[in-house]
Amino acid sequence: MRILLVGAGGVGAAFCSIAVRRDFFEAVVVADYSLASAERAAASADERFTAAQVDASSADSVAALAREHRATHVMNAVDPRFVMPVFEGARAAGADYLDMAMSLSRPHPDAPYEKTGLKLGDEQFAAAGAWEADGRLALVGIGVEPGLSDVFARYAADHLFSEIDELGTRDGSNLAVEGHAFAPSFSIWTTIEECLNPPVIWEDGGWRTTEPFSEPEVFDFPEGIGPVECVNVEHEEVLLMPRWVDCRRATFKYGLGNEFIEVLKTLHKLGLDRTEKVRVGDVEVSPRDVVAACLPNPAGLGPRMTGKTCAGLWVTGRGSDGAPRSTYLYHVVDNEWSMREYGHQCVVWQTAVNPVVALELLVTGVWSGAGVLGPEAFDAVPFLDLLTAYGSPWGIQELDA
Amino acid sequence: MRILLVGAGGVGAAFCSIAVRRDFFEAVVVADYSLASAERAAASADERFTAAQVDASSADSVAALAREHRATHVMNAVDPRFVMPVFEGARAAGADYLDMAMSLSRPHPDAPYEKTGLKLGDEQFAAAGAWEADGRLALVGIGVEPGLSDVFARYAADHLFSEIDELGTRDGSNLAVEGHAFAPSFSIWTTIEECLNPPVIWEDGGWRTTEPFSEPEVFDFPEGIGPVECVNVEHEEVLLMPRWVDCRRATFKYGLGNEFIEVLKTLHKLGLDRTEKVRVGDVEVSPRDVVAACLPNPAGLGPRMTGKTCAGLWVTGRGSDGAPRSTYLYHVVDNEWSMREYGHQCVVWQTAVNPVVALELLVTGVWSGAGVLGPEAFDAVPFLDLLTAYGSPWGIQELDA
Repeated sequence: MRILLVGAGGVGAAFCSIAVRRDFFEAVVVADYSLASAERAAASADERFTAAQVDASSADSVAALAREHRATHVMNAVDPRFVMPVFEGARAAGADYLDMAMSLSRPHPDAPYEKTGLKLGDEQFAAAGAWEADGRLALVGIGVEPGLSDVFARYAADHLFSEIDELGTRDGSNLAVEGHAFAPSFSIWTTIEECLNPPVIWEDGGWRTTEPFSEPEVFDFPEGIGPVECVNVEHEEVLLMPRWVDCRRATFKYGLGNEFIEVLKTLHKLGLDRTEKVRVGDVEVSPRDVVAACLPNPAGLGPRMTGKTCAGLWVTGRGSDGAPRSTYLYHVVDNEWSMREYGHQCVVWQTAVNPVVALELLVTGVWSGAGVLGPEAFDAVPFLDLLTAYGSPWGIQELDA
Repeated sequence: MRILLVGAGGVGAAFCSIAVRRDFFEAVVVADYSLASAERAAASADERFTAAQVDASSADSVAALAREHRATHVMNAVDPRFVMPVFEGARAAGADYLDMAMSLSRPHPDAPYEKTGLKLGDEQFAAAGAWEADGRLALVGIGVEPGLSDVFARYAADHLFSEIDELGTRDGSNLAVEGHAFAPSFSIWTTIEECLNPPVIWEDGGWRTTEPFSEPEVFDFPEGIGPVECVNVEHEEVLLMPRWVDCRRATFKYGLGNEFIEVLKTLHKLGLDRTEKVRVGDVEVSPRDVVAACLPNPAGLGPRMTGKTCAGLWVTGRGSDGAPRSTYLYHVVDNEWSMREYGHQCVVWQTAVNPVVALELLVTGVWSGAGVLGPEAFDAVPFLDLLTAYGSPWGIQELDA
């Protein structure tokens, strides 16, 4: 296995620090628009890791690099706006492909908060036949959310439930960053994208959308995190899970917290969430890029961050015995642990560990397939076992049904 | 009188539309960084108005243009960051000078919310001796606030009060803009500057500062505007009034409204109020300029704006008869009126009318002086009479003392 890792940001760098401890692959080429970033990430690993420059907005640039290094797998770790060129570049080079976010959505032109327009991943699924015909695999959405949450969905269907009412991904944390008035722990570009787009819901056999930040609900997160207010957010799980797992409803709610919601609403009100460039004096810039440039780099916040982050799936329905069941399957990472063990903050570490586990299952043939597939298309047990073997166990909590 | 008007934004264009109805001057050269803007403003007036290009950040550029057109008066109508080069350019060219905002402040390095650092106008007042020696006048802060509010202070001291406790400028409106989630009616650059700087207060013979948005107070504005929550904001009146008018206290409170305050706090929290450039991809921009570029141009909002704006001074103390007195002197402009009569929205119109009145008093010799002087250094009565003659009367309201 020869991996081309596209993107040496927070998640890409954490990917290297996790992969370096494993021996299932031959080489990782770490590529970034900034060669210096790629070199830093590669240098932090071992001699199997080398650095290269790439333009992720160009499928040709990605394909040329993949061919040059005879990559068997292209691992996409850049902002979701580059999903399509990296996805197409991988296919052009005859490599398998993995990502942690899917191709972007476009709201419905007339009823954005009722009907779906172009959905998350639609552009990728449109190419599924071509991937299948080539016998190549695109494993989409294999971070933590989407990713581990989707593995949980498959596990719940296969081992815990006879009938599923709702697959409700719930994400929350008690993270705080000392010395910053406002310091998101994940890419603000992506956070704005997912939080301001119309949230999507799967219900009774179809997808529909709702208003941003709708249906607030307090969810009590485990391992000392406690209750956090969660709201509907557009997320890949809602598009992935119902394709492979029977359920009446699929939702995603994010524990953004009130302050964060207010910030996002204000950015939207002022048009600062826009990605189209505006003219400012003699230059043109995307307002959203300016917002990102003004905030601290999430990857660098680890040393001043405290708390835990939790990703998980709340499943309701009927258990294997036919009785009502309500179960939360979850994965918690303590920032203190991830900083001490890996030198990466918990949110990017938690995202990056899952594709490393998946690649190890692919190289050993435990997971295999062709086409455009989500994590719930594969057996969950070997994934969860290997994640635990990586030193990062998952948990299960029964709730009142 | 030959006027060089520097700045053809909202206020500059309104200045032209007001001045064109008067015959006290010979020529106005309308200058802007954008020649097209200058040409538009000049073309809307008559043959006495011509257009030119100028770089307001360069005193040499301003001086050269003033000399070329033999300007007797330089009228500054650009953002306050350009006050010093325009002020110095006017002096270098031997012209008198007027502005509507003063040189910028810098917070105290150690105790920004207790002590003043460099105060608003300090850089201009430092040059007062030189202006006086040249026999030239710099009439600073002669818009509406500062400007008309300062005229009110002088009027109150001369005609209404024997002893003044507080000179409290209070600014509020009931303006709304249809079709925009957020549309400030005045330059957002200036609004951020004044609202996020430490507010300054004159008290017992000295200046001190306080926290932004401090001492919220509901003030009941006249002519149907009604109660608006006002908070402390850094403003020139507090620096000007106590230099010429005896008072125990001078304050400025602005009826920003809760939504606006939250927006400003969020911009500050995210660092988007900063003026220093940040690198975004291949370009460098000032985040505050990006915020301004994302919002609608305040000068263009008039047709969709409704409501009235009120500028005024709340004076408390003892009346001429020695009895306690509490009086609000004010000036209200209805947007519907200013749009119909002048084609300019009420906030920029209300700012621009005052320097036109002042120039007319200077050319006729009713007002005269040398040095760096505020509006309260001159007799208030002829100013208020001429303002009324312009069709825009002021009002007076007695409050419970």
